[in-house]
Amino acid sequence: MVSSRRKRFAKKQRVIDVDEVYAKICEGSRLHLSKAITLLESIHEEDKKAGQALLKKLLPKTGSSIRIGITGVPGAGKSTFIETFGLMLAEKGYKVAVLAIDPSSTVNGGSILGDKTRMEALARHQNAFIRPSPSSGTLGGVHKKTRETMLLCEATGYDIILIETVGVGQSETVVRGMVDFFALLVLTGAGDELQGMKKGIMELADAIVVHKADGDNERLAKKTVREYRQILHFLQPASPGWTTTAIPVSSLHHTGLDVFWETVLSFQSTMEESGEWQLRRQKQTKDWFHAMIRDRLIDNFFAQAGKKELVTTLEKELLVGELTVASAVDLLVSDNGF
Amino acid sequence: MVSSRRKRFAKKQRVIDVDEVYAKICEGSRLHLSKAITLLESIHEEDKKAGQALLKKLLPKTGSSIRIGITGVPGAGKSTFIETFGLMLAEKGYKVAVLAIDPSSTVNGGSILGDKTRMEALARHQNAFIRPSPSSGTLGGVHKKTRETMLLCEATGYDIILIETVGVGQSETVVRGMVDFFALLVLTGAGDELQGMKKGIMELADAIVVHKADGDNERLAKKTVREYRQILHFLQPASPGWTTTAIPVSSLHHTGLDVFWETVLSFQSTMEESGEWQLRRQKQTKDWFHAMIRDRLIDNFFAQAGKKELVTTLEKELLVGELTVASAVDLLVSDNGF
Repeated sequence: MVSSRRKRFAKKQRVIDVDEVYAKICEGSRLHLSKAITLLESIHEEDKKAGQALLKKLLPKTGSSIRIGITGVPGAGKSTFIETFGLMLAEKGYKVAVLAIDPSSTVNGGSILGDKTRMEALARHQNAFIRPSPSSGTLGGVHKKTRETMLLCEATGYDIILIETVGVGQSETVVRGMVDFFALLVLTGAGDELQGMKKGIMELADAIVVHKADGDNERLAKKTVREYRQILHFLQPASPGWTTTAIPVSSLHHTGLDVFWETVLSFQSTMEESGEWQLRRQKQTKDWFHAMIRDRLIDNFFAQAGKKELVTTLEKELLVGELTVASAVDLLVSDNGF
Repeated sequence: MVSSRRKRFAKKQRVIDVDEVYAKICEGSRLHLSKAITLLESIHEEDKKAGQALLKKLLPKTGSSIRIGITGVPGAGKSTFIETFGLMLAEKGYKVAVLAIDPSSTVNGGSILGDKTRMEALARHQNAFIRPSPSSGTLGGVHKKTRETMLLCEATGYDIILIETVGVGQSETVVRGMVDFFALLVLTGAGDELQGMKKGIMELADAIVVHKADGDNERLAKKTVREYRQILHFLQPASPGWTTTAIPVSSLHHTGLDVFWETVLSFQSTMEESGEWQLRRQKQTKDWFHAMIRDRLIDNFFAQAGKKELVTTLEKELLVGELTVASAVDLLVSDNGF
């Protein structure tokens, strides 16, 4: 009897009422939205299944938000910008969700939004939802979770999704691959700064925000804006039919934020008119699918006992010239699959 | 009896004397070098095995050449540049091999070097070896063959390997991943041209050759060189410790070719001194190994009956929002591998 009751109790613990969570998040419960995201992020099979069932139920409601990616050089003030910009939008009546992709958090244990107090005022606003970055997992995993979280937020009525990322690894490319509009935050002094910037990052951006354009910095910021515009003239735009622009913004004095928002809206109408908006989203879904297939195949392969060790051994033999690359691959992967 | 004799004959046809081919190509036989490359490119298992055996035998002799990648906008005059530059080097006594990566040839049936007469004078020179691009195969396949061909040429005494590519797909990144020095050929008028250029391509280059800097074009070419230098100032260099430069060259009047060659030599000594030369080559070998592992896993997976068709079906369901990406991957790839 005891064992049977325990079993029932254990089972009860794991039962997730998808319909109930669905109903609650459709009513706008941030608590239940958080719960749903936790299901998607869970490592337990049953939670994941419930999360996917929920996401599937919500899929028809996705697609109506504006998805904005934000990156920047260290010290550019990403959090301050996002909080100030997010508050402005929330005050206008928009529902704003802030997510983050931070592959560095797996390394140093930190997380961009881990410390929610960094966006305290925004976090308290009834129109805002802030979700810290998952603190573990591969980039593929973070990618998957953030993308699914974005879809959940969208389906539950968030009009604007802001996705913050840091310039580590492939994170900008990953974020560019899931948003409509991508903004790069920089400081004054284009010349010095650009040389420390990651290759090709400017060519991912639909807008460059020259941040901290206030006080003594204001004049310099305007000069920097001109410099960026000159460079942008020579680069291929990130989105077909759109000219990437540079905008001076001060989060401190709340200047330029409206120009930035108008730029996003103008981008949206231009892209919707040309059909690029929808085309890009379809392409993003397909690309995501194929990236996930590749990740799964590679993860499955290296999950086999001994494969990682064999790669290390083969790498050593390759570097001393004892083996050709083709033979090394033959030794590692059989013709029939693994 | 007849059947047994036929069998023996068929077997004889396939016997490849690796030692003989090895000896001949070490003596400098271009005919046997060509045969060896054909073995590597073959679809027959026995040929491929012989090719790999040969390559393994030659591996200790590889590594001593300078590997130069050359790309350019359409009409920039890549073939003319390569022929003139190649002849200059051949006349100096260097042995020069010219290879090509042309992913477009699988699409339109053409090939950069398919028409050898485009480099007739160079092809006739005793110090030169020209190998047309394979006209079929995936980019991964072309990559593999070109890289192995490069190693064969190197091992058989070629001092300088020139690898030509066209701006299609990922071909520049692929070539950048197998060469020491990467040059981008452009025409005059940086502003107009750059906007039609592929994203990030300038940031792959160790030198930008402003070609056709002759006649009425000469003055304009010098202006273009200045414009490129200005832009390059803002970009991250392709190779650590090296400042990418722009050089005016006229293949017609044979001007600037010596400056280009001095730039390559100066690059080599700078990189060798800092240790980057060897580090990059080691990284390239590792990256190539991992790219080939991924390619093999994905090829094997999609070689299974029905997988390609299933992907197409799932993509359609994804785009109409009937399925989440995670569920689609679950339906396609089982947890235990395939």
